[in-house]
Amino acid sequence: MTDYNILQTINTPSDLKKLELSKLPELCTEIRHAILNRVSKIGGHVGPNLGIVELAVALHYVFESPKDKIIWDVSHQCYPHKILTGRKSAFMDDNKFQDSTGYTAPEESEHDIFTIGHTSTSISLAYGLARARNTIGNKENIIAVIGDGSLSGGEAFEGLDNAAELNSNFIIIINDNEMSIAQNHGGIYGNLAKLRASKGTASDNYFKAIGFEYTYVEEGNNAEKLIKVLQQAKDTPKPLVIHVHTLKGCGYRPATEDKERFHWTTPFDIQSGQDLTTSNEENYGSIIADYLDKKAEQDKQIMVINAATPGALCLKEYRSKHPEQYIDVGIAEEHAIAATSGMAHYGIKPVALFFGGFIQRAYDQVSQDLCLNKSPAVLIIEGTGISSSDITHLAIFDIPLLSNIPNLVCLAPSNKEETLRMLDWALEQKDFPVAIRTPWQTPANLQYPPKSGIKLGRSEITKRGEKIALFGLGSFLELAEKTAAVFEQKGFHPTIINPRFSNILDKEMLEELSQTHDTIITLEDGCLAGGFGEKIARFYGEKGLKTYCFGADKEFTNLVPLKELYHRYELTPEQIIQKVL
Amino acid sequence: MTDYNILQTINTPSDLKKLELSKLPELCTEIRHAILNRVSKIGGHVGPNLGIVELAVALHYVFESPKDKIIWDVSHQCYPHKILTGRKSAFMDDNKFQDSTGYTAPEESEHDIFTIGHTSTSISLAYGLARARNTIGNKENIIAVIGDGSLSGGEAFEGLDNAAELNSNFIIIINDNEMSIAQNHGGIYGNLAKLRASKGTASDNYFKAIGFEYTYVEEGNNAEKLIKVLQQAKDTPKPLVIHVHTLKGCGYRPATEDKERFHWTTPFDIQSGQDLTTSNEENYGSIIADYLDKKAEQDKQIMVINAATPGALCLKEYRSKHPEQYIDVGIAEEHAIAATSGMAHYGIKPVALFFGGFIQRAYDQVSQDLCLNKSPAVLIIEGTGISSSDITHLAIFDIPLLSNIPNLVCLAPSNKEETLRMLDWALEQKDFPVAIRTPWQTPANLQYPPKSGIKLGRSEITKRGEKIALFGLGSFLELAEKTAAVFEQKGFHPTIINPRFSNILDKEMLEELSQTHDTIITLEDGCLAGGFGEKIARFYGEKGLKTYCFGADKEFTNLVPLKELYHRYELTPEQIIQKVL
Repeated sequence: MTDYNILQTINTPSDLKKLELSKLPELCTEIRHAILNRVSKIGGHVGPNLGIVELAVALHYVFESPKDKIIWDVSHQCYPHKILTGRKSAFMDDNKFQDSTGYTAPEESEHDIFTIGHTSTSISLAYGLARARNTIGNKENIIAVIGDGSLSGGEAFEGLDNAAELNSNFIIIINDNEMSIAQNHGGIYGNLAKLRASKGTASDNYFKAIGFEYTYVEEGNNAEKLIKVLQQAKDTPKPLVIHVHTLKGCGYRPATEDKERFHWTTPFDIQSGQDLTTSNEENYGSIIADYLDKKAEQDKQIMVINAATPGALCLKEYRSKHPEQYIDVGIAEEHAIAATSGMAHYGIKPVALFFGGFIQRAYDQVSQDLCLNKSPAVLIIEGTGISSSDITHLAIFDIPLLSNIPNLVCLAPSNKEETLRMLDWALEQKDFPVAIRTPWQTPANLQYPPKSGIKLGRSEITKRGEKIALFGLGSFLELAEKTAAVFEQKGFHPTIINPRFSNILDKEMLEELSQTHDTIITLEDGCLAGGFGEKIARFYGEKGLKTYCFGADKEFTNLVPLKELYHRYELTPEQIIQKVL
Repeated sequence: MTDYNILQTINTPSDLKKLELSKLPELCTEIRHAILNRVSKIGGHVGPNLGIVELAVALHYVFESPKDKIIWDVSHQCYPHKILTGRKSAFMDDNKFQDSTGYTAPEESEHDIFTIGHTSTSISLAYGLARARNTIGNKENIIAVIGDGSLSGGEAFEGLDNAAELNSNFIIIINDNEMSIAQNHGGIYGNLAKLRASKGTASDNYFKAIGFEYTYVEEGNNAEKLIKVLQQAKDTPKPLVIHVHTLKGCGYRPATEDKERFHWTTPFDIQSGQDLTTSNEENYGSIIADYLDKKAEQDKQIMVINAATPGALCLKEYRSKHPEQYIDVGIAEEHAIAATSGMAHYGIKPVALFFGGFIQRAYDQVSQDLCLNKSPAVLIIEGTGISSSDITHLAIFDIPLLSNIPNLVCLAPSNKEETLRMLDWALEQKDFPVAIRTPWQTPANLQYPPKSGIKLGRSEITKRGEKIALFGLGSFLELAEKTAAVFEQKGFHPTIINPRFSNILDKEMLEELSQTHDTIITLEDGCLAGGFGEKIARFYGEKGLKTYCFGADKEFTNLVPLKELYHRYELTPEQIIQKVL
């Protein structure tokens, strides 16, 4: 299909620098082919990478990476950078996709400075590098590349605010493709629009207001023009913002026509852009979105809040059906939580949804703005549990994070019906903020599905037995059932408990169990340290009962297959039983 | 001294509204007297409250609180508001100081909407109220009052960014007194300075850039002028920023002459401004500041970072001696952590200091930017432990917060010498980020002070005994010693352990102990849930040893006397022994 005539000569940025400027458009076309080859087959970020090809080429043409340091915000747009810095085969060669991750990874290349996957951090990280460079007396360029979407995150503002006072080299490139993951939200985007419309000359320039020198580049998908601007900027003795207007998905029509769908995608047919995954399996995201859709019809005081991830949360249909009961705050989790607290406090019914690991940006707001004020809002934390995900996108720390905050009621449903019951319960009560964590897996088909209604702090005994008690939190109730079945084969008759609450112990039930059981096993689909099992261990520690806690080790794992993780954490029924007996 | 002629007629905002404008300066003088009466005797925030007297008077003169809702950012400047809303006796009457806290408190008055104590949240909370008001169809005014210092926090930007898009009433008052807690830091302060100098007409207006209507008031300490502007703003159909220039400490010369010292202060002599506390006791803050001072002399790669709290961290002398090795990022903890990671990554030696509960604003950055990247920076968390503090300023959640993050080494020193050893160790190693938590109490005089050097993950047995093992984490090693002494009186000979690491178990030692001990007691000066003791309980749970964990309950407490908390949490040697035996 493609010959990669030029790309095959490029193994390092030095090779790129030897090319004549006139060859760059062809190189960019080849880079786009390589990107599409990978993402169409294994999925990934499409639009952000296609849009930044020329900028990545220009940066490596002008600057001396890795001496000059380029920090890519979120780093989901680093594919062209990876292709230019020795990792093209992970895009061109179908057998080598696994050689490179979808984010910058210092273990892959000296051109990748940090492991990054959360937004709005690049300016602060780069600021740290620049301060250290100045301390040591070095002179290289430090460059942060940040998308317009990431600018809505508070950390980006904090970074801009401080970087403006650096009295030394510092270059911030705003990659303005007029989109966040979905549509941008926030007043600053009005300013960016005015700056684009006026070719950078509009009054009340946000970046100048903070104190930066400012340059605008309209043709952000023209490598030669970018190179000229960057050559001017190189070795600048003071902080500089270069505002570059690019086209998200540039060079691939399906991606420019539906930018939101092609921000990140599963495998697709290149010709048509059609999604190749045909799964119609129900998942927790769609279950919750359907529930909210019906609720919002009936009750105009329902308000759904999310922070720039409507697609991942299955909220696109809800968004179009209930625009008055939907708020996307942009990438701004801190604000999302405080605003949610304000709405609940006033008396309406906010439901704020977050994807797995992203709630962690708002710990202080959950604690102070929400829980200390006991605002009865509902938080939904989706996509949680042990997974083979990227190291930056693990969602196993939410139990330690949230469950130790006073006043917050933390629920973990074990199947679809229980999820719906918990949602009802959470929306009806007016005493506490409630967080519901749902797993990334499809809902379980339980042998002993939950029967009773939700009562504050009450667990459910799903099967009564003796001696051994198995606590299966949320999605791991299924594992508890499976483990119990193997125990039965060996002649034991364990009790199975659905704790429901990850942070409220049903002490009456625990006391009762201690009279007829001597071995306690806890199973949780998340990090053990600071989690649910340790609370049970503390309770039974005073009684001297044997307690075994199973869950994930406290570690960052990177794209490790699920089966391998389960084996490592002894999360198969056989391993559990072997350890306990 | 003062007759409070006017103030004695003011019990509610309605009383205020009856006053002629010409009486307001006298009222403001009386309010200042009442404020000074309280803070000079029991301490508190001085400058912020003296500076905002006229603004508080004007707000309550014009708006209809509590129907109109005023949200005070941080709420440390709410004293005049409290005086005008039924709580003047807590300022005028020395016997009634305890009737009111130093922050807004909904349980005190319907005029206080939220309990607030952390910065930069007011716009987001108010945005939530405004969205809910719009949903319900109400029409009252929603007003956020935020200081210039709080604008450096990312959450404030997120709030501004979203609020600019509200198509309804919303009023943000920027109380610009040209100061944060200490001097302001960040590019935005250049913009505020230009706006002040130009009476609001300067180009590249930060607030206009984000999309707000904007009004400037130069005479922010003139109630009559403020009232005119607020009357114009009242019932505005769209978001509006009113930038008010005030004088921090206005009306009290010592406070205007040393604004940093009088931001918050312990009791002082009103006449001279002299501090009345004469304690010269060494505390952990001064010990660490002295250490850093000496280190910075020797090693120019030491860089001290803090987020706007140099006074509370005893860094004012360090700041003046080592300006090149000192960074105050402003109120911007997220940025502080990411920047710290950048500096450590580059190879210099950053030491970032935070006061107790404020580190919690940067959980995501500690996890992703710092720990995932294994940048060998040193964090110091000061003022931790169970205390009688305000509900918003508790510092008992740092162990659950930090100790469950992978790659982070969490240390808890038990006395001065161990603190210094841990600092040395943390700065010498290059493998991990290290967090050192120090207590608010003065350093302990231990009977068995730590002897051995610091080794990764190794605890120290400070006294060998049998049967009972007492783990005293950090400041609670002293409590372990005292408890052991009472045990000895009863004929027991417990082992005392100094764990040193709150999140790494010395498994070899724990194994060894399990052979000669059957009762384990853990003591930690912080929240039990998610903390250190539960990790020990999990370890010994598998062995069936009896384990008792002592520490704080998971709850928000408000100004509860320390003795009462210790009693509630069974933290006296007698209670511990009674529970265990």
